[in-house]
Order: sequence, then structure tokens, then C-alpha cells
Amino acid sequence: MFNYQKYEKKYYLPPTLSYDWVKKETVEKAPIWCSVDLRDGNQALPIPMNLEEKLEMFQLLVDIGFKEIEVAFPAASDTEFNLLRTLIDNNMIPDDVTIMVITQAREHIIRRTFEAIQGAPKAIVHLYNSTSEAQRRQVFKKTKEEIKQIAVDGAILVKELAEETGGDIYFQYSPESFPGTEVEYALDICNSVLDIWKPIPEHKAIINIPTTVENAMPHIYASQIEYIHKNLSYREAVTLSIHPHNDRGCGVSDAEFGVLAGAERVEGTLFGIGERTGNVDLITLAMNMYSQGYDPELNFSNLDAIRKKYEGLTRTTVHERQPYSGDLVFTAFSGSHQDAISKGMKYRRENKLEKWDVPYIPVDPADLGRNYQTDVIRINSQSGKGGIGYILESNYGIKLPYKMNEEMGYLTKKVSDETNKELSAEEIYLVFIDHYVDYYPSFQVVDYQFNKNGEQKVTLTLLKDNQQIEIHGKGTGSLDAVSNALQEYFGIDYNLEVYEQHSLGKSSLAEASAQIGISHQGRMYWGAGINQDIMKASVQALVAAVNKLEVF
Amino acid sequence: MFNYQKYEKKYYLPPTLSYDWVKKETVEKAPIWCSVDLRDGNQALPIPMNLEEKLEMFQLLVDIGFKEIEVAFPAASDTEFNLLRTLIDNNMIPDDVTIMVITQAREHIIRRTFEAIQGAPKAIVHLYNSTSEAQRRQVFKKTKEEIKQIAVDGAILVKELAEETGGDIYFQYSPESFPGTEVEYALDICNSVLDIWKPIPEHKAIINIPTTVENAMPHIYASQIEYIHKNLSYREAVTLSIHPHNDRGCGVSDAEFGVLAGAERVEGTLFGIGERTGNVDLITLAMNMYSQGYDPELNFSNLDAIRKKYEGLTRTTVHERQPYSGDLVFTAFSGSHQDAISKGMKYRRENKLEKWDVPYIPVDPADLGRNYQTDVIRINSQSGKGGIGYILESNYGIKLPYKMNEEMGYLTKKVSDETNKELSAEEIYLVFIDHYVDYYPSFQVVDYQFNKNGEQKVTLTLLKDNQQIEIHGKGTGSLDAVSNALQEYFGIDYNLEVYEQHSLGKSSLAEASAQIGISHQGRMYWGAGINQDIMKASVQALVAAVNKLEVF
Repeated sequence: MFNYQKYEKKYYLPPTLSYDWVKKETVEKAPIWCSVDLRDGNQALPIPMNLEEKLEMFQLLVDIGFKEIEVAFPAASDTEFNLLRTLIDNNMIPDDVTIMVITQAREHIIRRTFEAIQGAPKAIVHLYNSTSEAQRRQVFKKTKEEIKQIAVDGAILVKELAEETGGDIYFQYSPESFPGTEVEYALDICNSVLDIWKPIPEHKAIINIPTTVENAMPHIYASQIEYIHKNLSYREAVTLSIHPHNDRGCGVSDAEFGVLAGAERVEGTLFGIGERTGNVDLITLAMNMYSQGYDPELNFSNLDAIRKKYEGLTRTTVHERQPYSGDLVFTAFSGSHQDAISKGMKYRRENKLEKWDVPYIPVDPADLGRNYQTDVIRINSQSGKGGIGYILESNYGIKLPYKMNEEMGYLTKKVSDETNKELSAEEIYLVFIDHYVDYYPSFQVVDYQFNKNGEQKVTLTLLKDNQQIEIHGKGTGSLDAVSNALQEYFGIDYNLEVYEQHSLGKSSLAEASAQIGISHQGRMYWGAGINQDIMKASVQALVAAVNKLEVF
Repeated sequence: MFNYQKYEKKYYLPPTLSYDWVKKETVEKAPIWCSVDLRDGNQALPIPMNLEEKLEMFQLLVDIGFKEIEVAFPAASDTEFNLLRTLIDNNMIPDDVTIMVITQAREHIIRRTFEAIQGAPKAIVHLYNSTSEAQRRQVFKKTKEEIKQIAVDGAILVKELAEETGGDIYFQYSPESFPGTEVEYALDICNSVLDIWKPIPEHKAIINIPTTVENAMPHIYASQIEYIHKNLSYREAVTLSIHPHNDRGCGVSDAEFGVLAGAERVEGTLFGIGERTGNVDLITLAMNMYSQGYDPELNFSNLDAIRKKYEGLTRTTVHERQPYSGDLVFTAFSGSHQDAISKGMKYRRENKLEKWDVPYIPVDPADLGRNYQTDVIRINSQSGKGGIGYILESNYGIKLPYKMNEEMGYLTKKVSDETNKELSAEEIYLVFIDHYVDYYPSFQVVDYQFNKNGEQKVTLTLLKDNQQIEIHGKGTGSLDAVSNALQEYFGIDYNLEVYEQHSLGKSSLAEASAQIGISHQGRMYWGAGINQDIMKASVQALVAAVNKLEVF
């Protein structure tokens, strides 16, 4: 039954709408990042992480640069409780990192939570209860006042226990299921909780507004956040935080707009792991800043390695199209994209550009530890000369003349189209070798001797129809002499139009590659040679080109 | 090298900024959906679809309800060209579906494109050229005027060939790489192209504004679209279209804001397949409308089957957290979520609600062909009584008393925590049977005989320490008599506090399940019995509960 009439809008607009946020262009200063990988992320895994895995994850998050890490819901299971005890009892928390623990606003859960953090030098206790109209009516069967009282009672107990416990305890409150909560009511609860905590600017409280289940467009969320930002009590003593989920595919926009609207802190996970469609992906948020020239204050220079580690610890996979981290996000198969990338890379090299500006590649893959050569240009039937030329050059040092590259493009695409598969660099190289280098169906040159007196003379030994034949020629230069010998012997007439040669490496022992284009009756024919001896390479190229003539 | 200073903002604001779009709440009317799965989607596949696969994909798109389908870049490869010929020559295009073909603004490509659509009763020819500052400078090395001329020349040729060709040919123009193009310049090119085509309201042209590579936040794109919407020539004769990509993870927001800002048509793909991070996922866009009660004009009632087919044809996988279609997007592992879902489902049943309103589940999974029982509530160490009770009830019909459910919750979580794995419904059922039903470590009742004269008397045959013993008891009812017999014989004193029994099916032959809770020295002890005979079930439940007492 596919019936849209079974649904209706369930979000609430704030009582006053303002759009200051829309006039800001982008996120220029990194918010406080709080990783909830170990809690909200872990909670969504079919097989949650065990203690050892959680400790490794904690270290990974610290290494990336997170200063706030929600480590557990300690009352939820022994593993979660034990993680806290392990971290605290072994002094495993760096001085500049604050751990956070989450607790429902229920007495025995709050008490158990404080047992878990006993002895921690510093911690955030994150208190929440569900406030939405649907949950009040269906789950708790309580009035607005009663639901608010749950939060207030929780806030009182948390404050009492914090005073008893000692240590530097910070408070955070979340009106859970905020997207289904009347905005002014959510604000009222937050302000009532703040009235208990009475935070001061030197020791702030955190108010965290989640899109527990995304149910509206992100500009609605931005206006809700802007309203809360403008109407929160103790505003200078509060860090306004957001916690976006992704049910409508807009978690990134929720987060970015939330920050424009006044939020100073963002909770999320690496790669967007989390309940249902996941949390917001903090990597995407950080890299969105990075790619516009702003400091994200997190380090993803080895993103590829981070990803592999993360996939192992969580037994999940990052999708190939996940922004910045997916396997295919820097890859172009299409001919026109490859052509532009390849020209852009050349332009960048030649003009020694400082700023990154390559078409179709929003950030330099090398910045993230990606393998530039294998990731960016990949060849299939959709590809074109630009990409194929790029592969030959970047992998084998072979630079083709423009028209030869075009022909090589068609040849290669055809192979991919007919075999219906992607071609590796090696397969492309073999197409090149088979069609241009080792190409002598009609005749081969097995030896040559030059003899110069005034003009250049040559004696060529041909192998044709299994017979060796000696032929002679002369010209203004060596190659010219060889070419003339062939034209005379076979009685054909072509022009040597293009001759290019370059070394395939920097050393003088490196191989050279020669490309030769000859014209015959209005068409171009191409050959190539690869050899340490530049003369041998040139002869090989010429022989291949001449073999292509339709006279044989 | 992780250095944000290598980057800078590269987008352009329109010359006048307006924000009419931000005052609209949501997308209430479906735009024209144009699927580009066969072109932009296919172009990003390591192994592109072959002809047969493309024909199957075309049929799938038609079945879903697409009325505009970009089928190919016919000049790019033989397979693409042949797809067109197959569709046209075999009359495979339904009357209400318009195919689209894309072509660069280059003469030989445009000509080849028209060869491909020869004989089509109706088609959109989609002309594009790249217009960004970076591409003009690095790739084409042309001025703004020269780049505009490419578009204009292409528009002229397209118009000429359309007139020669016959058939009902519509025109579309895209300023490719729009995100890096000065907005007023992109508008100028579009208007120059429209000046060639001179569309009329009865035969509109399409102007398509892509986020070829997403490089700004979606509210910037919205303001760009609003500017173009307000300044486009021939506005009533033009369909304004958008084509979002997802490099910053904001494709969905680009699309939705673009529509609020004046776009009437959206190009995208199923599941967001496409170059790099992909195109916008049209399923998410459609379902976002659906979940707020608006008609998406596409049918995803068998989304699960569509996904399987799609994965087969494209050799890709849909990520488990992809909105609406991923494996895990309706799943709750966490205890509090499961509890709310299970109460919400009960509330819905009891109150016969028409509108969907279940906590944590934005749309009814059944609407999309999902298996409600296996998808929604899954049990691991993060789970709680609500979810575990729900599994027992929905899979086995067993309803537990509140406190017994709580104990069963702790038991089950512990099994999952210790074994570090997710538990299937069957494994949870076995935990239940082992702990509550087949539980008689100290004694068992192997037979009973009732004998009623005034008060109820019973003779029980116990099996204890491998010996059979006959004991007697009496009471006000049968179960009372059995209980009294046990208390007297063992010299213990408990209260029978909870007794619940229900059938496990609708037929009178169905098994019954009994749950019994007894209190002893301030603690509750639970047992259960399952039998076709309600007395046997009750005795089994009582025996299990009594066996739990710590007196044995």
C-alpha cells in the first residue's frame, strides 16, 4: 500500500521566524566537534564493539584531534560501564580531552552513570529525556508539565551527585525527539534545566538540540536553532550544540545551517555511522570547511588508513560514494571529465599554482592519503583520449601526439565496450604495445647499418615472408634514409609528418619512446617504438607505422 | 600534506541576492522527475551496463513512473548509440514517456546524436558546454565570449537538425560546471541560447542548472536558482531544471531548495548513483515528499525489489544507511528506541490511527515492501525489554507481564553482551524457554489428579532426585491447590502474585502460554508454560517459578 495520505507534516515552526543564518555564506570557524562514535555509533551496530575495540576507537578519535568524546551509556551494559572504568583507572584520557557519558533522566540510571565516572578528573554528564508530542502521548502518557519535571528532577539529581563526586563535571541536556517537539516547549524545558544548573561563562553548560529523526527540511531546523539561540537563558554561559541525523538525507545541511544559526558545537560520527540512516558524518563537515580554505581543526591526512581501521573495528563498510572517503569519489570514467582533469593537472604543474583548482576534483586526493594514480582516472567504454593519454603518461611516461592519442582513445574504448569491462593501466599499455609497437604483420626490420659520407646512407635487413632481404636508402638524416629505403623498395609514397621522441625516465640509461605519424592518401598512420637506443626506437616506430599502410 | 590554505572558495554569488525560497516550508508538488540513470549514472559505473541491461533498466524506470528519461550520450560509444536504435526501431518507448539524449556543443557530436534519434516520435536533445572560469582558463583557453559562442553555435545547429529530422524535438541547455561559473554569465549564455530557440509556452525549452561539482552550501545554490528563475528570458516558455551532485553531501538539500527557489524539474538517479559522490537520489526526494503527505508521483511500493534489480543491473550495492532503501534504516537496536516503537505500534493498533506516527520510524516499512518483523527491531547488547518483548510477541505470540519482561530483557542483553553478537528471534526464544519454561533443576511435576468435592483437592506426582513422590494439596481452585501442595511439602512460603494466560493463536486447538510470578522474601520469581492444555501450561509455569526459589 503506497499511500502518501497516510502521512502528514509533524514538525513545529518556532513562534517567531528569523533568517539571520541565511545571510551567512559558509562555516568559517570550526565548531567544537564531539564524537559520538563510541555511543550513538556503536549503538547502531549489529555487533557492537567489544572493550578492546572501543579502546582502539578511543585512541583513533584522540589521534584525529577530537577534544570531546562521548564514550558510553554506562548504565546500558556491562561493556559500556567497564569501558569507563578501564579508561579512568588506567589514566588513559589525555588532559586536553573531555569524555562524555549519557544518561536518561531516571534516578537509578543517573546513579549508575556517576558510579561509572567516579575518579575521572573531568567529564560531561549528558542528561536527556524524550519530549515529543508523539512520545508524550504514546509512550509516556504524561502531560507537558510532567515531562518537563522529569528533566528538572534529573537535572537536580545530576547536580547533587556531581557535587558529591568531585572532579570537574560539566552538564549537558538534550530534549530528545526534538523534531517532534513544540519549539517553545523544548526551549522552556532547556531553560528550566539551566535554572537548576545556573551555569557561568567560566564553566558552561551544554544545551544539545538533536534531529533525533529528521522530519523537516534543513532550513526549518536552522530557524528553530536560531530561535533557541536567541531565546536561551544564561546564553553566555551555554554552549549551544546540535546532533543531526540523516533520515531525509540532509544531516550535513542540518549541521552546517545549525552552525550558521548559532550552534557552537556539533555531535556526530566518522563516516556518518549511527542509528537508521546514521548521524551526520563529521569527516564531510570538516572537509567541506577544508575545501574552502578554513581550518577544520581535525586531521584527516591519512583518511584512507583511518577508514580501514574504522571498518575493521565496527565491522561496517564505507560506501564507495561517501563524500571524501568513498572509493570512487575522486574517480572519473567519462571522457570529457578525464580530458579536463588531465589538462587541469598539466596547467597546475606548468603554472606552479598554489591554490587547488583542478576541474571535477574538489580536493587533492593526495591530501587524504589517497593514491592519485590509481584513484582518479579509470578507463572503461565511457572514457576518452584525455584519460587514456593520462594513464599512459602517468603510469608509463609515454606521451602521445594529439592525433595519435585520439586514435588510441577510440581503440581502447572499443576494447572496453566489446569486452564490457574496466581496463587496468596494464591492459591499456598492452593495447598500446599491440597496436603501435609490436606491430609488423607484413615486414620487420631486423638490422641496419649506417654509413655517412656527406649524405646519410643506410643498409636495412628486412624480414618479410620468412625471408631476409637487404635494401638500401639515403637521406638527409638517419631516419630519413631508413624511410626512403622502405618507400623505394615497396614502391610507396608517404610523408613523415610527425616525429616525437622522449625518454621514459630521468637517467641516461632510461628507455626512449618514439612516436611517428606518416600520411598516405590523406590519412594518418601511427607507430611507436620503445628502446634504450633512440635509433632502434625510431626505426621500430617507423616500421609499425608503415606496416599499417593499406598497401600491404 | 593536510593544508587547508591550499584551498579557497570558488563559487559566485548572484549579483542580487533574494531569499523568497526560505519562507516556503517544504516541497508540496512533485517536480518533473527526469531519470539520468542510463546516462550520468551509467557513466560512473566501473563496468557500464550492456544493451540488455540498459533495456531492463529503461523498463524499470518506466514502471516506477518516470515520464522523462535521459537514455544515452549516443556519440560516446556504440553501445549508447545502439540503445537508441533498439528503443526507436522496436517502438519500445511508451507514448507518455519522453526520452532525452545528451550532446556536447560540437558539430560532429551533435550530428551523430541526431542520427541516433532519427525516427523517434518525441525526444529532448540536451545540449551542453562547460562554462566555468577554471575550465575556460585551463581546458579550453577561450574567452567568455568564445565559450558563449560555442553554446550559441550548438543551439543553432540543434535547431536546424531538429527541423530537418522531423519528430517532436524539445531542446535543453545546460551550462556545465555551473558551480564555478559567474552566475550572471551563466544566465547570459542561457538567455542567448533561448534567443536562438525562441521557445513558446506550448512547446517549452528546458534550462538545466547543474551542481556539476558541489562547491557551496545549498542555500547559496538556492539563491543562485532564485536569481536565474527571476531573470530568465521567455520564462513562461521555459522549464527551469536542476541537476544536483553530492560532493559536499548536500545533493538532497540542493534539490529541495532548488525547487523552493523556482525549479520545476529535477534530474537525478535512483539510489544516487553517479559520478564521484553521485547524483541526487530521487528516491529520497520522492519519499521525503511522501512522508509529509504529498504525492511524489513515483511509485516505490516495491522498493526492496527495485533495489535488488538495480543492484544486479549496475553491479553496485546500496549502502545499509541509504535513506529509505538501506538495510538498516528502519532498524532499532537500542533499548529505549525499541521500547518507544513497541509502545507506539501498540498505541496505533489500539487507537486505529489513520496517520502514521510511530516514534523513530519515519515511514511505515511495509509501504516500501519491507519485512516489518525482521527489519525493525533487532536484538543485541544495546537492546532492552521493549524490543525483546516485541520480538517474543510478534514472532511467537508470547506476551510477558511487565516485570517478567524486564527480567527477560536483562537476561537476553547479557547473553548478547557476553557472546558479543546479535541475537535472532529464535535465539531469543531459546533464552526464554531455557530460563522460564524448561526450568526444573530441583524437581519436576510428572502427573496430577484433581478431585473436587466442595473444595478443590489435588494429588501431584513429583520427580525429585530421580525418585517419584506423591504429594497432596487443596485450595480454592486448581492452581491454588497445586501451589499449596508444593508449599506444604517443601515447607516454603510464597505468594502467587501474577498469573496471566493467553492463547498463542486464534484457534481453540492453539497452544496456550501461562506466565506466573511468585514473591518470596521481597523478590519476584518467574516461570512460564506452553501447552495445548491450559492446566498443563499453568502447572509448568508454576513449577519453573518455584524451582527458582533460592531455598533449593
